[in-house]
Amino acid sequence: MTFPLRNDTFLRACLRQRTDYTPLWLMRQAGRYLPEYRATRARAGSFMGLATNPDFATEVTLQPLDRYALDAAILFSDILTVPDAMGLGLSFEAGEGPRFAHALRDEAAVAALQIPDMNKLRYVFDAVTSIRRALAGRVPLIGFSGSPWTLACYMVEGSGTDEYRHIKTMMYARPDLLHRVLDINAQAVATYLNAQIDAGAQAVMVFDSWGGVLAHDRFGPFSLDYTRRVVAALKREAEGRRVPCIVFTKGGGPWLEAIAGIGADVVGLDWTCSLADARRRTDDRVALQGNLDPAVLFSPPEAVAMQARAVLDDFGSAKRADGRLGGHVFNLGHGISQHTPPEHVQALVEAVHAHSRRSGA
Amino acid sequence: MTFPLRNDTFLRACLRQRTDYTPLWLMRQAGRYLPEYRATRARAGSFMGLATNPDFATEVTLQPLDRYALDAAILFSDILTVPDAMGLGLSFEAGEGPRFAHALRDEAAVAALQIPDMNKLRYVFDAVTSIRRALAGRVPLIGFSGSPWTLACYMVEGSGTDEYRHIKTMMYARPDLLHRVLDINAQAVATYLNAQIDAGAQAVMVFDSWGGVLAHDRFGPFSLDYTRRVVAALKREAEGRRVPCIVFTKGGGPWLEAIAGIGADVVGLDWTCSLADARRRTDDRVALQGNLDPAVLFSPPEAVAMQARAVLDDFGSAKRADGRLGGHVFNLGHGISQHTPPEHVQALVEAVHAHSRRSGA
Repeated sequence: MTFPLRNDTFLRACLRQRTDYTPLWLMRQAGRYLPEYRATRARAGSFMGLATNPDFATEVTLQPLDRYALDAAILFSDILTVPDAMGLGLSFEAGEGPRFAHALRDEAAVAALQIPDMNKLRYVFDAVTSIRRALAGRVPLIGFSGSPWTLACYMVEGSGTDEYRHIKTMMYARPDLLHRVLDINAQAVATYLNAQIDAGAQAVMVFDSWGGVLAHDRFGPFSLDYTRRVVAALKREAEGRRVPCIVFTKGGGPWLEAIAGIGADVVGLDWTCSLADARRRTDDRVALQGNLDPAVLFSPPEAVAMQARAVLDDFGSAKRADGRLGGHVFNLGHGISQHTPPEHVQALVEAVHAHSRRSGA
Repeated sequence: MTFPLRNDTFLRACLRQRTDYTPLWLMRQAGRYLPEYRATRARAGSFMGLATNPDFATEVTLQPLDRYALDAAILFSDILTVPDAMGLGLSFEAGEGPRFAHALRDEAAVAALQIPDMNKLRYVFDAVTSIRRALAGRVPLIGFSGSPWTLACYMVEGSGTDEYRHIKTMMYARPDLLHRVLDINAQAVATYLNAQIDAGAQAVMVFDSWGGVLAHDRFGPFSLDYTRRVVAALKREAEGRRVPCIVFTKGGGPWLEAIAGIGADVVGLDWTCSLADARRRTDDRVALQGNLDPAVLFSPPEAVAMQARAVLDDFGSAKRADGRLGGHVFNLGHGISQHTPPEHVQALVEAVHAHSRRSGA
C-alpha cells in the first residue's frame, strides 16, 4: 500500500526543481534533545534495543515530525549496523559510545571480512517499511549509511578516536589491507542502501563523517573513490520517482569540487563553508544541503531566526539569471546536539519556512 | 651574554631567504613520546610543576635537540598560562586535561576580567632566558601563545570540549561579552609575546588551535581580527634581527588567503591543504609551515621518509621563475602524538634534510 506523497518539497529541492519555500530537516532530528525520545529509549532499555526494533524505530522517527513542520523524515538507525552484521560484535557501553569486540587489526582479520548477509539487517528494512506506512505520505523518508571510509574508521579503531591511529597506520603502512576493507564496505553499503530503497526509502544519504580527517592527497583514494562506487551502484528510481542521493563529508569543504563530481544529487556542507561560495564552486551542478552551525540552536529564538535567515540569504535565490535553478535543502552542518532546547527548533523551522517563502526559494 | 647563532636556516626560511635545505621542527617536539621527557615530568611531579620551573622547562626543551638535528627549539610551556595569570584557576586533573575553576560564564565574570600582571608570568620569561643560555646559539628559540579566540574557548568552556557550547552560545547570544574577552586577550597575548621576545625568543608563534570550529562568517570577526591585532602589536626586531611571526589556525585551510593577509611572516597549515595549492593561493607572500599528518609517524621508517618527501615535493622548489623565493618550514600539521616511536622521528628528520638538500630547498 502506497500513499500519495503530500509534501514533495524536499525531493524537488534535491533535484533542483522549483519549490515554494526551502525545505528543511535536521541531522539527528530524532534524538536525545527530545523528551519523548528519551522516554521511548528508556522503554527500549538501550540504544541498540531502540534501533533494532522496527516499532520503536518507527515511533522515534516520527516524533520530531509531530512537533515540527519538517519536510523529510530520516530512518532512525545507527551507522554501525553494517559492520555489526559483518560479525564485528558491536556494543554500546554506558557513556562510552560504540565499541567493536573484533576490531580489524591484522591481515587475518581483514582477509576474513565478508559482505554481510542482508538478512541480518532485516530489522532495518522492516523499520523502513514500517515508517513509510506510519508516515502515510506526509513527507518523504530518507535512508542512510556510513561511507566506506567512515565505517572502516570504526571497524579498524574498534571505537571512537580522535587520533585515528590504527586506521592511519594501516593506510600508510599497509594500504593494500585498507583497500580490501574499503572495497568490501563499498559493496556492502551499496547493497544495504538499495535494500532500503526497495523497502521504501525515497532518498538516501551517505554520511562520510570522518572524511575530513584525511590528508589532502588521501581523501580521494581512501574515501571519495569508494563513495563514488557506492553512488554508481545505487538504484536511482523507485515508485516512478527519482531517488535522490545526498553525500555529506564533514570537513569536506576544501574538496567540494571533487565531491560534487561523483554523481550525487546533493552535497552536504558543514558551517565552515559559505553556501554562496559553494554554489559558485559547483556552478549549481548539485543541490546543497546545510549548513547552520548546530551551536546556534543554544542561543535565544530571535538569534536562531536571524542566523537561519543568514544561511538562506547566503544561498540566495534558487533562480539564476540563466534560467537554471540551484537547489537548497536547509539543514545543520552536523547532528543536532542533545543540549538543544526543543523550543529553539520550533523557531528555526518557522524562520526557514517564512523567510524562504518571502524571499522566494 | 649572547652567542652567535650557528644555525639560522629556520629564521631564513621564515623570511623567504635562501637556505641550503628545508629546516624542520615539530609541534610538541618536547613531549610524552620521549622517554627522557616522561622521566623529567615524573621528577617534576605534574605538568604544571614542569611548565612553571625554568630549570625543568629548559631541560625538556633541549631533549629533542639532543636526539635529532632539528632546526629550531620551542619554549616548553602551556597555552593556558595567560588565563591562569588572569586568575581563572588552572588545574590539570589526572587523565582529564586542563580545567579552570572560574570559567567565564556571566556578565559579571567578563566585566571583572583584566589583562594579567606580567610578573605572574615571570617563570615563562625566565624559562626563555634560561633556554637561550642553554642553547648557546645551536638553533633559534621560538616563543608562543594561544590566540585570543583559542584562549577564550578554554576560558569560557572551563575545560576541553568538542561542542563549544558555552562559547558559541555567548558568541551568538551575547557577542558584546565575547568581544570584551577577545579584546583583553589580544592585548594580553601581545604583551606576553613581546615579553618573551625581550627575554630572548627569536621567533613567535600564535596557535589558533580552535579557529577551525567557527562558521565561515564568524572566523574573521571572532578569531582572525584579534590575531591580526596581536601581530600588529608585536616587536619585529630583536638583537639586530627580524623576529618572524608564525600564525597557525588548525582547520584554517578554507580561509588561507585571509590568514596570509594579517601581517604574519609564516602561515602554518594542517594536512588537509596541499602546500602547492597554498603557495598558489598566497602567491608566496608568506612562508608556509607544515604539513605532514602526524599519524604518518606511526608507520615504518621507509613509509615516513616517503611521505616526508611527498610533502617537500608538494611545496616544490623555493625558487620561482620570477626570481622571488617561497619559504618552507617543514613541520607536522598538528602536535606530535604521544604514541610516536622516537626512532620514526629520526627517519623523518633525516629524510627532510637529505631530500631537500638534493632537490634544492
